[in-house]
Amino acid sequence: MTGLSKLRIDGRRLWDSIMSMAEIGPGDRGGSCRLALTDEDRQARDLLVHWSEEIGCSISIDDMGNIFARRAGNNNDLPPIVAGSHLDTQPHGGKFDGIYGVLAALEVVRTLHDNEVVTEAPVEIVVWTNEEGSRFAPAMIASGVYAGLFEKEYAWTRTDNDGISLWDELKRIGYLGELSCGDHPIGALIEAHIEQGPILEKNKNTIGVVRGGQGQRWYDITIKGQDSHAGSTPMPGRRDALVAAAEMISKVQQLAQEYAPDAVGTVGELAVHPNSRNTIPGEVFFTVDIRNPDDRVLARMSDSFRQQGESCANRHQVEISIDEIWHNPSVQFDQACIDAVSESASELGYKHQTILSGAGHDACQICRVAPTSMIFVPCAGGLSHNEEESAEPEDLEAGCNVLLHAMLKLSG
Amino acid sequence: MTGLSKLRIDGRRLWDSIMSMAEIGPGDRGGSCRLALTDEDRQARDLLVHWSEEIGCSISIDDMGNIFARRAGNNNDLPPIVAGSHLDTQPHGGKFDGIYGVLAALEVVRTLHDNEVVTEAPVEIVVWTNEEGSRFAPAMIASGVYAGLFEKEYAWTRTDNDGISLWDELKRIGYLGELSCGDHPIGALIEAHIEQGPILEKNKNTIGVVRGGQGQRWYDITIKGQDSHAGSTPMPGRRDALVAAAEMISKVQQLAQEYAPDAVGTVGELAVHPNSRNTIPGEVFFTVDIRNPDDRVLARMSDSFRQQGESCANRHQVEISIDEIWHNPSVQFDQACIDAVSESASELGYKHQTILSGAGHDACQICRVAPTSMIFVPCAGGLSHNEEESAEPEDLEAGCNVLLHAMLKLSG
Repeated sequence: MTGLSKLRIDGRRLWDSIMSMAEIGPGDRGGSCRLALTDEDRQARDLLVHWSEEIGCSISIDDMGNIFARRAGNNNDLPPIVAGSHLDTQPHGGKFDGIYGVLAALEVVRTLHDNEVVTEAPVEIVVWTNEEGSRFAPAMIASGVYAGLFEKEYAWTRTDNDGISLWDELKRIGYLGELSCGDHPIGALIEAHIEQGPILEKNKNTIGVVRGGQGQRWYDITIKGQDSHAGSTPMPGRRDALVAAAEMISKVQQLAQEYAPDAVGTVGELAVHPNSRNTIPGEVFFTVDIRNPDDRVLARMSDSFRQQGESCANRHQVEISIDEIWHNPSVQFDQACIDAVSESASELGYKHQTILSGAGHDACQICRVAPTSMIFVPCAGGLSHNEEESAEPEDLEAGCNVLLHAMLKLSG
Repeated sequence: MTGLSKLRIDGRRLWDSIMSMAEIGPGDRGGSCRLALTDEDRQARDLLVHWSEEIGCSISIDDMGNIFARRAGNNNDLPPIVAGSHLDTQPHGGKFDGIYGVLAALEVVRTLHDNEVVTEAPVEIVVWTNEEGSRFAPAMIASGVYAGLFEKEYAWTRTDNDGISLWDELKRIGYLGELSCGDHPIGALIEAHIEQGPILEKNKNTIGVVRGGQGQRWYDITIKGQDSHAGSTPMPGRRDALVAAAEMISKVQQLAQEYAPDAVGTVGELAVHPNSRNTIPGEVFFTVDIRNPDDRVLARMSDSFRQQGESCANRHQVEISIDEIWHNPSVQFDQACIDAVSESASELGYKHQTILSGAGHDACQICRVAPTSMIFVPCAGGLSHNEEESAEPEDLEAGCNVLLHAMLKLSG
């Protein structure tokens, strides 16, 4: 393994692979729409499998649809050193979120293949199913099952807005593998990803050495008032569910500002019933997402939000139900994996910093059962979950070189 | 026409007709779902036509689908004295809103028929198309075309949420008549209706003698921000369209309270894009409905709302477009028609009061081209546009007796 310090990935080939992948399920405005387990997701998976098999990888698929493409090492009894992320996107998603991590892993394996480098431990590319959670909530469901955070039966029975189950769609697109999810060993996992935030760009750093991830809580909120005529119902007697919801949306915003600068809070989804312009809304459903790196602060935010819900219900004479559907505590990555990334970045001469992940990632699940870390690269304006998401080829190349050398360190 | 002062309608028959009509397009919770120009609306129209023909009425249908069922008088050169309302409902509508006015008119004609009373002028039952505006905006579109407030071409080309046009649906259900809308003469129009507000109930009055209707403005609002990742986008840089919308919803509420007690303001419809729980909403569409009996106050409310929109756009760094899609000035009904209602209520010994209509009604359109008034009866809790809308048989009977005698006065 000497002389490998000069080894570099092919930045142009990496970029071209990302652009080819983006042709599957293109968005209206230059991004991607490739929701989990749709036909487009199947095509993306098929392409990744095809590319992996071209360079001699063997494919395993588990019963959550996670794909492991393995390049054998000298000692195949060792657990593999794994890199990857996800191929599904938001409805109006970008070309890089998730995809970069998978194709950077592919590029690392292609580089090892081209240079006939044989690692001690096997090396693998992983694709995790339904990371986004846009089609099937909650997000990161398949890495969550792998890490023992969700029951497999629970995950299989999640349904999309049309009532179609995750299991049905896994089966339909041919990615319901026989391997039981969680049984496939992982010696270490490194996930490369765009930052999806503005920090690296602001600090003019190329590499973020991620030390862990924020704690996160998701809520489903239902407000029940009374639908009534918009013209002839005087203001005082109204039980307007949308007016109450509007107040709570503003409260979520205020709550996040109160715990600045680390806290965030978002209402991303909302539905009004009966949704008619001259009827006072009798019912509103919406989602709340709050995050903080400190689990104690997150718990305080949660308590405060519930209290605000109660007072809002009294003030507007509506019923408010607040259902916490997901609680993901903050995570701390593995020091050896963090060091492998940090040292690689230093050796390669890239400007880098430690950073915390604002978003949830599959790595934040897997780190509970296997040594894990992440590599961040900048994206323009910190913009993500948006079709205009954009990253520089040079930064993507740098992150992939860091991934290559971190994996070489870990795989021996 | 002497001795007619003792004539009374059959309250039981009126009630039974309302209940039979409610069986067409029943709601989940005891109300009705009979959107304009659906198969259910066609069935309701067919039933009304059938009942009218049973008692010898002749049917005319105009090219907006308005139905006129005519009972001949002694002098058929006189323009007819017309009563009626609409048969379409809100998505979660009640059994009485609109339907009562049509079936009270039918009951009046049935009573004249049973008692072999021949009026001087002909008497007619009218059904106006798409009063609610739930399927095709704006509301009261067909009475609006009749009154010259909308171009017929504009009305025909309105589409529902599936992009289907009003004209296509008129044709499909067989109610695109040959008579040009507006050509059918109206000597006077009286519309009986549930109050849809709490005033009569509160004052323990049976009859509301309606002197006019509120001015009304409808807006379509689109807010454009930027969709971005909910976890990794710090609060300060966000351009969250839903947070801005929430602030404007609260402002609509405050604006109506500021001009208490007559003003009302409602956001009834709202849609979020991309509507994903971990993406900051990049775009929100919503509707605003503001009403006031004084057109100058309504204009001040409108100005104030637009100013709030501008400051909200600046504060949240979003673009807000405010499109006024409809402006219906307040109306004053015809004094002779108001008197006919008021005198009939007195003669019949019903407790009554003058009242202003908070809701828009077909009568508020027709009054611009023909002498018009309305009769209100109480509904439980003032609740309407709700499946639990409810009215007492005795009150409905009283309103119908007032309608009978007002029509007798007007038809000579």
